[in-house]
Amino acid sequence: MIIVMNKEVTEEQIGNVVKKIQDLGHEVNISRGTNRTIIGAIGDESKLDPEMFDSLPGVEYSMHIVKQYKIVSRESHKQDSIIDVRGIPVGGNQIQVIGGPCSVETPEQMNLAAQQVSSAGCRLMRGGAFKPRTSPYTFQGKGRDGLGIFRKAADKYNLPIVTELMDVRMLDTFLEHDVDVIQIGTRNMQNFDLLKEVGRTNKPVILKRGLSATISEWLMAAEYIAAGGNHNIIFCERGIRTFETAYRNVMDVTCVPVLKRETHLPVIIDPSHAGGKSWMVPSLARAAIAAGADGLLVEMHPNPCEAWCDADQALSPQEFTDLMCSLKGIAQVIGRSL
Amino acid sequence: MIIVMNKEVTEEQIGNVVKKIQDLGHEVNISRGTNRTIIGAIGDESKLDPEMFDSLPGVEYSMHIVKQYKIVSRESHKQDSIIDVRGIPVGGNQIQVIGGPCSVETPEQMNLAAQQVSSAGCRLMRGGAFKPRTSPYTFQGKGRDGLGIFRKAADKYNLPIVTELMDVRMLDTFLEHDVDVIQIGTRNMQNFDLLKEVGRTNKPVILKRGLSATISEWLMAAEYIAAGGNHNIIFCERGIRTFETAYRNVMDVTCVPVLKRETHLPVIIDPSHAGGKSWMVPSLARAAIAAGADGLLVEMHPNPCEAWCDADQALSPQEFTDLMCSLKGIAQVIGRSL
Amino acid sequence: MIIVMNKEVTEEQIGNVVKKIQDLGHEVNISRGTNRTIIGAIGDESKLDPEMFDSLPGVEYSMHIVKQYKIVSRESHKQDSIIDVRGIPVGGNQIQVIGGPCSVETPEQMNLAAQQVSSAGCRLMRGGAFKPRTSPYTFQGKGRDGLGIFRKAADKYNLPIVTELMDVRMLDTFLEHDVDVIQIGTRNMQNFDLLKEVGRTNKPVILKRGLSATISEWLMAAEYIAAGGNHNIIFCERGIRTFETAYRNVMDVTCVPVLKRETHLPVIIDPSHAGGKSWMVPSLARAAIAAGADGLLVEMHPNPCEAWCDADQALSPQEFTDLMCSLKGIAQVIGRSL
Amino acid sequence: MIIVMNKEVTEEQIGNVVKKIQDLGHEVNISRGTNRTIIGAIGDESKLDPEMFDSLPGVEYSMHIVKQYKIVSRESHKQDSIIDVRGIPVGGNQIQVIGGPCSVETPEQMNLAAQQVSSAGCRLMRGGAFKPRTSPYTFQGKGRDGLGIFRKAADKYNLPIVTELMDVRMLDTFLEHDVDVIQIGTRNMQNFDLLKEVGRTNKPVILKRGLSATISEWLMAAEYIAAGGNHNIIFCERGIRTFETAYRNVMDVTCVPVLKRETHLPVIIDPSHAGGKSWMVPSLARAAIAAGADGLLVEMHPNPCEAWCDADQALSPQEFTDLMCSLKGIAQVIGRSL
Repeated sequence: MIIVMNKEVTEEQIGNVVKKIQDLGHEVNISRGTNRTIIGAIGDESKLDPEMFDSLPGVEYSMHIVKQYKIVSRESHKQDSIIDVRGIPVGGNQIQVIGGPCSVETPEQMNLAAQQVSSAGCRLMRGGAFKPRTSPYTFQGKGRDGLGIFRKAADKYNLPIVTELMDVRMLDTFLEHDVDVIQIGTRNMQNFDLLKEVGRTNKPVILKRGLSATISEWLMAAEYIAAGGNHNIIFCERGIRTFETAYRNVMDVTCVPVLKRETHLPVIIDPSHAGGKSWMVPSLARAAIAAGADGLLVEMHPNPCEAWCDADQALSPQEFTDLMCSLKGIAQVIGRSL
Repeated sequence: MIIVMNKEVTEEQIGNVVKKIQDLGHEVNISRGTNRTIIGAIGDESKLDPEMFDSLPGVEYSMHIVKQYKIVSRESHKQDSIIDVRGIPVGGNQIQVIGGPCSVETPEQMNLAAQQVSSAGCRLMRGGAFKPRTSPYTFQGKGRDGLGIFRKAADKYNLPIVTELMDVRMLDTFLEHDVDVIQIGTRNMQNFDLLKEVGRTNKPVILKRGLSATISEWLMAAEYIAAGGNHNIIFCERGIRTFETAYRNVMDVTCVPVLKRETHLPVIIDPSHAGGKSWMVPSLARAAIAAGADGLLVEMHPNPCEAWCDADQALSPQEFTDLMCSLKGIAQVIGRSL
Repeated sequence: MIIVMNKEVTEEQIGNVVKKIQDLGHEVNISRGTNRTIIGAIGDESKLDPEMFDSLPGVEYSMHIVKQYKIVSRESHKQDSIIDVRGIPVGGNQIQVIGGPCSVETPEQMNLAAQQVSSAGCRLMRGGAFKPRTSPYTFQGKGRDGLGIFRKAADKYNLPIVTELMDVRMLDTFLEHDVDVIQIGTRNMQNFDLLKEVGRTNKPVILKRGLSATISEWLMAAEYIAAGGNHNIIFCERGIRTFETAYRNVMDVTCVPVLKRETHLPVIIDPSHAGGKSWMVPSLARAAIAAGADGLLVEMHPNPCEAWCDADQALSPQEFTDLMCSLKGIAQVIGRSL
Repeated sequence: MIIVMNKEVTEEQIGNVVKKIQDLGHEVNISRGTNRTIIGAIGDESKLDPEMFDSLPGVEYSMHIVKQYKIVSRESHKQDSIIDVRGIPVGGNQIQVIGGPCSVETPEQMNLAAQQVSSAGCRLMRGGAFKPRTSPYTFQGKGRDGLGIFRKAADKYNLPIVTELMDVRMLDTFLEHDVDVIQIGTRNMQNFDLLKEVGRTNKPVILKRGLSATISEWLMAAEYIAAGGNHNIIFCERGIRTFETAYRNVMDVTCVPVLKRETHLPVIIDPSHAGGKSWMVPSLARAAIAAGADGLLVEMHPNPCEAWCDADQALSPQEFTDLMCSLKGIAQVIGRSL
């Protein structure tokens, strides 16, 4: 950590900062520049916080020099981590497209969807039983029953299932239904109690980025899960909130090369929620794979116009199959497979 | 709801939309303009959703005409609501400044803080026992013990207490400690299960705005609480996330006149978290009251430099007392009291 | 245009709005719904503005139904426009990568860069003679001399040149140096007088998106150029400003499919400025082409570490050549050539 | 400037950075910490730029330690600067409210407005002759004629005039009409050639903040004016662009205490453009003054409903007069006059 002193700093003020650093068990380096004196605190930064120093007399500002995430950082683990989902690898050379409807509706719909997802070449399936909805008056998901319907349909095609957990009290139910990948949604990225609980399981977790979460906050949220012992974490970008109103969110592809540098964990993208309209999805999905994402979450519905939720963002089975084909081509160009 | 058809729309496509509207039990108005045909669905909009129509052939876009929140809307309840907190009114003519430290540390600190808050003229006190922290490696709050310490200190000065609930499983503990006002924090504004649960109590709730929540989403989050039967809701703006990096967040005073128009419920502001530095707080606090806020949440610590959390944003007791004085003057200018 | 009246509207207020619409030469459609009365103004919307109605008694809000851009809109011109730059097509099936250094430094540097750009397979070259810099104390570009140096170097390899015009008074100088494509930079996207002047020439114009410009504002800025008679406009996304601080800007790939729908004009992307670091560029460049962009602006410098400006974002000649290779592969997958 | 080296840095890489710093005429301080080595460059930072180092092997990142603005900085000039506008002080103890219509329409309108502005107690008047409009098809201002009309009307009431300059070629015309304060609009905040030209005059300049300009960029834009010799600069916040769609912009009051710390120059706020609706203006205006702004730009029109431009954001003369009254009260509370 470095502490930058202001221009009129006195020797006494410098002395107080030095003493505080030493009291906290760190060594000190003082650099007296033309305009500013900078005090460096040498040692384990994670025990220091800028707010400890910013309120001291003579301090202009202070800042960490190294990132605060550890387990999830590339620095702590050089090789790419590959998350094993019932034998299916996420991360590494093979790209995974996780297809399926926004929400579980009926056994018929899920059976059909599972068959279509499987025949399009996907190895995992998505579907929501508990839906976070902006309005309390809209469809909130099928709940427990939905989990059962989903499990049954997916099992017919041997597809591991990915579904969102919103309420910490529902975790046991998820484990009973043997949910293969627990999705933590955008609105819960900093629901720290939920993160701590999934951190105590050994289930793979897809951690979606909050609508306005910085890369650093996102990595720290993953660190909450990892600190509990569960290192099976997959980051999922799903569009960020900006000033633009012409589309729901802005899909942030820049996060892919940046996360690949900062963490060893896999990174996937959800182009369906990012754009919010099905006609944008193929373009965004291709961009995501070309940027280097390890996979995608894509909404597909047997009959989009009849979907109970997000009808305008699901691909039809034919559109989905066509997309898979061009994604394969792009994967090959960049030396990966799908 | 209106559905705007695209320029090349056919009569058959118009017919399909009309049929869908009628099947849903609504009447139809068709307006054929120079460039576009607009179809109006007449009836209770809450049962319709743009996504039901946006994927139909010939539809350019569709949109709600009225807001989706009901119980919390000014339209449903003309007069300002006043929330009663153990006899202290929030909302209405009297402004409430809720002071106290960021987090509960020790009985001594809380006793001193309660005495200072009370003698500065506050009628309610704040303090955190469960702290949402970006990093899993920093102080997470005193937990249950903190609630007890807070309750005891505040009772000496007859101050109702305001404290944050993060985990739905902790609600009973809050009720046992007779927490007077439950605060839902920024990161949990759309933790819908938590909202539903506090909606089943009759405790006053301070609902903080999410870092990038729109006014509309915020009102809908309140509607989740209200729909459960609990109408004792207080909105609290605490700074929004923008592109600016010179300060932590941007305090959005514009939300005050806008919320006052849209809802009958009280609106308060937290200038301490908005700016993130104690030297900004007096300026922001004065702006909030001048803009018409019904109250403030202000961090004050007996000894800011020694605070365990957010040390650089708490006012000292003297600064706090001085601020109260100028706030009283501003309240008077706009015809209110403090 | 539709005008939504508020719930308590009176017949007299409705009558006033109707009269105003009719006085402006439009017809009226009134739809009386359960909660709101909506008045539609039928006719050429471009002569109406929401602000004309929003201040009238009884009006809740009003809004345009169709977009306000005309010449640049896809609605007015169905086929993709191809911009001819001295025989090189921009738009259409062939993708153009415009390479070159951030700024013109010396004849040697520009000669070398031109040779490298050409041998990597580019057909156009970029370079800045006038540099918009945040600080008045940093290198502001070589100016007029720079234009001459650039022109000479590019002519050796028969490369049309792309360079930024900042000052309207410099337009004649640009025309004298026969600049092939005039770039309007991010900070000048709404410099309306500059737009009007380039609209009076017939030179191709690359119109970069403002840092926080909406798609709609960007299209309207292009409309300023088009309204002057110059339809040779190329849109260039270069990263938008968001809350994220881990990278300079967020490259908005979603704008590609959206612009392709809204306008017939070509869309290119500048991944170098978007990310701000050279190591991000290959990933972003691939994403841009995969998303459907018609081309790229990429910074390449013969010796990046020695660049006078933006040294950390330029690719080396070798990195640039490698990138071109993978871009060719992606172009092929999506049925285009490079 | 400090250069943070990455974890695997070699002695040779450190040596290269040290050499580069010394070659640039600076001294070096090396701090070898537990996790990182930090190299400090001691001397005048304005000649160094992070991009000079970020591309060197072994460098993780580098950053300035002091701010890059000089003339406008509080560090260079401790006392508040007061700008003299024909004898009227802007800055200092007296608050100035600059009232007037959005745009100059007719002599009658301007005469009436001038009389109303004056009788409400204002000492300066605003009005636009050249209007930056999003669409090329809307009213672009009365131009030169408008300047003459404005000058004449304001002179009757001895009001100095404030009006926007968009085109650098129009500067002489502004000087001929003896415009008292030149306004640089939001969209031109980084029109560097325009800034340089007004920097060569000695006219007071109101520099509006760009829609998404950071505090630092805004101060650097002012530095462009100051570097030319013109130190008569007034900052004007007018709302920033965020994710929120319920109002046009978010008025950023936090910038007031922050700018007051960073610069000695006056800071005013334009609540009319920030909110975009006249009913928000009184609340926002009061907040601005309570936050410590040195003045306001407020739109007032003799007959708002008939205004040619921004009809829904102008106050009526009566609303304006009422507002002035409450602003006086707030000014008094914080020890200032109006």
